[in-house]
Order: sequence, then C-alpha cells, then structure tokens
Amino acid sequence: MIGASQCDEELYETARRVGAEIARRGHILVCGGLGGVMDGAARGASEEGGTSVGILPGANRSLAGEWLTVSIPTDMGHARNAVVALSGDALIAVSGGYGTLSEIALGLKMGKPVVGIGTWRLDHEGREERGVIAAGSPEEAVALAEQLCRESPGGRPDPLQR
Amino acid sequence: MIGASQCDEELYETARRVGAEIARRGHILVCGGLGGVMDGAARGASEEGGTSVGILPGANRSLAGEWLTVSIPTDMGHARNAVVALSGDALIAVSGGYGTLSEIALGLKMGKPVVGIGTWRLDHEGREERGVIAAGSPEEAVALAEQLCRESPGGRPDPLQR
Amino acid sequence: MIGASQCDEELYETARRVGAEIARRGHILVCGGLGGVMDGAARGASEEGGTSVGILPGANRSLAGEWLTVSIPTDMGHARNAVVALSGDALIAVSGGYGTLSEIALGLKMGKPVVGIGTWRLDHEGREERGVIAAGSPEEAVALAEQLCRESPGGRPDPLQR
Amino acid sequence: MIGASQCDEELYETARRVGAEIARRGHILVCGGLGGVMDGAARGASEEGGTSVGILPGANRSLAGEWLTVSIPTDMGHARNAVVALSGDALIAVSGGYGTLSEIALGLKMGKPVVGIGTWRLDHEGREERGVIAAGSPEEAVALAEQLCRESPGGRPDPLQR
Repeated sequence: MIGASQCDEELYETARRVGAEIARRGHILVCGGLGGVMDGAARGASEEGGTSVGILPGANRSLAGEWLTVSIPTDMGHARNAVVALSGDALIAVSGGYGTLSEIALGLKMGKPVVGIGTWRLDHEGREERGVIAAGSPEEAVALAEQLCRESPGGRPDPLQR
Repeated sequence: MIGASQCDEELYETARRVGAEIARRGHILVCGGLGGVMDGAARGASEEGGTSVGILPGANRSLAGEWLTVSIPTDMGHARNAVVALSGDALIAVSGGYGTLSEIALGLKMGKPVVGIGTWRLDHEGREERGVIAAGSPEEAVALAEQLCRESPGGRPDPLQR
Repeated sequence: MIGASQCDEELYETARRVGAEIARRGHILVCGGLGGVMDGAARGASEEGGTSVGILPGANRSLAGEWLTVSIPTDMGHARNAVVALSGDALIAVSGGYGTLSEIALGLKMGKPVVGIGTWRLDHEGREERGVIAAGSPEEAVALAEQLCRESPGGRPDPLQR
Repeated sequence: MIGASQCDEELYETARRVGAEIARRGHILVCGGLGGVMDGAARGASEEGGTSVGILPGANRSLAGEWLTVSIPTDMGHARNAVVALSGDALIAVSGGYGTLSEIALGLKMGKPVVGIGTWRLDHEGREERGVIAAGSPEEAVALAEQLCRESPGGRPDPLQR
C-alpha cells in the first residue's frame, strides 16, 4: 500500500479502509512506515487486528507510525521504495506524489499487480499505458489486488539484466 | 542519462548524440551501465573523449557496456535506480520503460531537473504534471539540463522525512 | 539475531533458545530470514508465540524460513546486512561466517550493543577490541542485550559523515 | 582501497602510495569517497594521472574528496560499504575502524582478495582466520592484490542463497 506521507482527512480515511480490508482478508500490510496515507493504512489494519510492516527511509524508528506492528529502518532514503515495491505481492496506490509514482513504476517493472485509487495515469508519448488498474473503492481495490495475485502468482516481471 | 536497455537504431543514435554533447560540454555521463540507450550514450561520450560511469544492477561487470570508463556493480537490482537518479546533477530521459519512469519519478522527488526526449508524460488524475521538460533534440536536451542546473544548483528536493 | 544460513544441530538449538528468550521477554526477533541459525531463532520465537521478521537478500520469498511472521525481500544481496544491523535495537551473534562478521562490524559502527555466543573475536594489529560482549548461554545473551539497550537507548553510533 | 575517514599523516602517506601504485599499474582506484585514508588514496592516484571513484554514503557530493575523478552519492549510509566491496576486483585495507572491518568481511564473503596494511586480524573462537593477507608496504599490497586477481579472476564467492 503506497501513498504520500501527508494527506487530508478524506485520503486518510480511504487508506484506513484499504488497511482494514487487507487485514480482514488475512493479509499483511506493507507500507513505507511514515505518516499520511501510510499511517492511515497501518491504523486500519491494526483496528482489524491485522499485522502491518513499515519500511522506513531513515536510520531509526523516530518517524515510524504508531500503528505499525513492525518497522524496518533502512537508512537508504528513496532506494527503500524498491524494497517497499518488492515486499508487497501487489501494490495499492492511494493518490500520492513522485515517491508513489516511483513505487508504481518499480512495481510494474517487477511485474506486480498495481491497483490505484485516484492516482497517477501513465502516458508514454501519447499512448496511454494500462499499467495501473483503477478501483472505485478501497474494498474493491483490495479485492482486485487479491484476484490479480491469484491469477498471476509471483507476477510477470520484466527481465532485469544483471 | 536514463533509458531502456534495449532500443532501436534511431533511439541509439539519439542517445549517442546526448552522450556526445554531455562530453563536449565537459560533463561526466552517468547511466545505468547496460545496453540500449545507456550504451549509446556511453559510446557518444567516449567518442568525444569524455568520461562515462555505469551504475550496474548486478554483482559483477559481465553486462557492463563496453564504452564505459567506470562501472559500479551494486547488486541491488532496481534499487540502483535511486543511485542513478542521485548521481546525476540533472536527468535526461530518452524514451524508456517502467525502469526509466521510476528514475524520472525519483529524480523529480529529489528535486533534480528532468529533461525528456520522447518519454513519459505524467498525469495525476487528469491534471497534467509539468515535471518532465520536453526537448526537441539531444543537443537541446543537454543545453536545457545545463541551464536548469545553473538556475537551481542542488535542486529543490521534496523534503524526505527520515 | 545474526548467524550463518547453514549450521549443525547444536547451533540450531542455541539459536532456537535465543529466539525463544527474545519472544518470552516480549521483543520482536529480526534476522536475515534464511536457514540455519536464522531459522532456528525464528522457530524459537514462533514456538513462544512471538513475532519474527526476516530481511531477505533475494527478490522474492522462495528462500524465506517457514517460521517467520514477516519476510522482507530486498534484492540487495549483502547490502541487506546493513538493514539487518539497523533493524535490531541490539545484535546477538551465534557463531557465524564472514556475513555475520560484516553485521557485527556494522552493528558496532552504528553503536548498537553486540552480544556474541561462540563468534568472532576482533583484534586490530594485536590490540584486542572489546566490541563484542561474550555471553555464556542464549538466555544470558538476551538478558545482556536487553540490559545494554536500557543503559544506552539508541546506541552510541560512530558519526557517519554524509 | 578501504580505510577510515580520519587518519594521521603517516597513514595518509601510506594510502597515497597505495593510490599512486594502483594508478601506475593502470588500474582504477575505488574507495568510499570521504576524507582520511580515502582522500590520501585518491590523491595518490590523481598525482600519477590515474582515475579514482568514490562511492559516497550521503545524498550529495558535499563531502566528496577533492582528488576524486568521479563521485557517486548513494544516500545508503553504511549499506554503501557493500557497493564499495563489490566495485573493487580486490580490496586493500589500510588500518581502519569498524566500517573498514565490515568491508573486509563483505569482500571475503564475496570471494575477493583482501590485502591488509596494519589492519584487522580475524579470529573465530580462537581459530585464526587467514582471510586478510598482510602486506609490508603499499607497493607490495598492490602487487599482491594484482597477483591474487590474476590467479582467481572474479574471486571465489561464498554462495549467497537468494
């Protein structure tokens, strides 16, 4: 679950419903571990008795959201976005800025299902890319992500030459 | 300079001209170190007597482009995209897929100037983002990047909470 | 809790007792998420109803230990050792090879308490370093680590110039 | 070439001779890019007309040594030590603290030749490890490293499960 570290109340509630639905369906929530949309999702998961994990950009837990079950300081700054994208079986983006866009792109590169609520649309020189699948509600987003994981377990990653 | 590891001859020539112009203006070229657009740019820089650096996703140099002056194996997969974005004072994107999109997003998040030739357009829920500045030619792209760096040395990064 | 991905039965039992004691004292176990000593510790934590986290070197969960509560694929190879070291409030090393030695060194550099059971001794040109505190049993190791964290919360990191 | 970011004049001169010898033999110097031993080595390489690369822990070049040809900001803190270890075909350690010890351990784990001048000795529970090969002078250190690379190109890495 990806999104900005600052958000208004409406987005916070959206994120909270995403986190709650993830927990209700028995999944673990992974996020970037900071405030805003990440905190809302962790709170939703916690309120449903679920487990949430925050992959932090800093070297300690001082900015870790209070609702997280587990927090992982990486001290890797934006490179932690790649770990966030890897750690989810699917990604659900709620709005978000450039950091979220980088996670969407990394998730798509890794072949993960990416579901979006009010987030980035991708357009390559006038040709719209269908990478991000739009959902109408938090509950639908989680249902879609779950379904896409079932259809394509492990995803269809772009081959990375290394 | 960012772009895909596989490309057609036209894009290769575009990248080569970008690399050549970077070298002619006395700058060091940084790229992802693999084939395609990255190789074209390194070749262009080399042909003008310049220096090029490739930040590789793998653990060794087996896939490093032959025109690179220096190659850095990171063994960090896609997380190396953050290092590529950090290592340039500005980013020039030539077309590119999701990996390039992630580097564009990371560069914008870091406040770096991002210039594009035939690459991604960013649209957040119908509102077009002006993050990527379009250039009409390789030479114009490098001139624009240079000018933007002069106007805003160090960039205007989004504050990253850490 | 750090140690090798392959070990004999005796070390496995030692690690299991470390993990069990960590859980009994209400802490979360963090480890490298693979087999051997890491698996023993995760099993011990699980058997006591605790939570364990594995920070994996690979891009997916195929090698994640079966006793882990949460696994985090990083795809960063050995660089994940720095994340393992950062994620613990203290480090407990059970024997271990060069990977464990790197985590001990990183933990000491970060100012974390490092407790060892049958592990590396550090000697700089004939002058023995007192960095790793030896424990006589798994239970003593956890008690020592807890005490050291209380005495120096957040540790006393070497200043890292960055 | 690895070592501490602060050092006395004698160690600085030792590092400078290592860097000079690396350049004289036509190799590229890779280091952590900061002051002390790293700066001495970069200076030595530069004075012989060689190329030096600094892999920085921070997000920008503000602490990059002035003698470097190329500097790579990683913003990954201590995790950049793994990139430093990967980027050299062999490692030469000049004295050094815990950060250097972590790079020695990572280099040995990766199967790289590690040559030391007045640095860490490794001892696993009373059994001395022969991992670090001692050299009597900077010039001997570089000659040894070169020879070991020839004998075992690519090194003999420990298999990393991932």
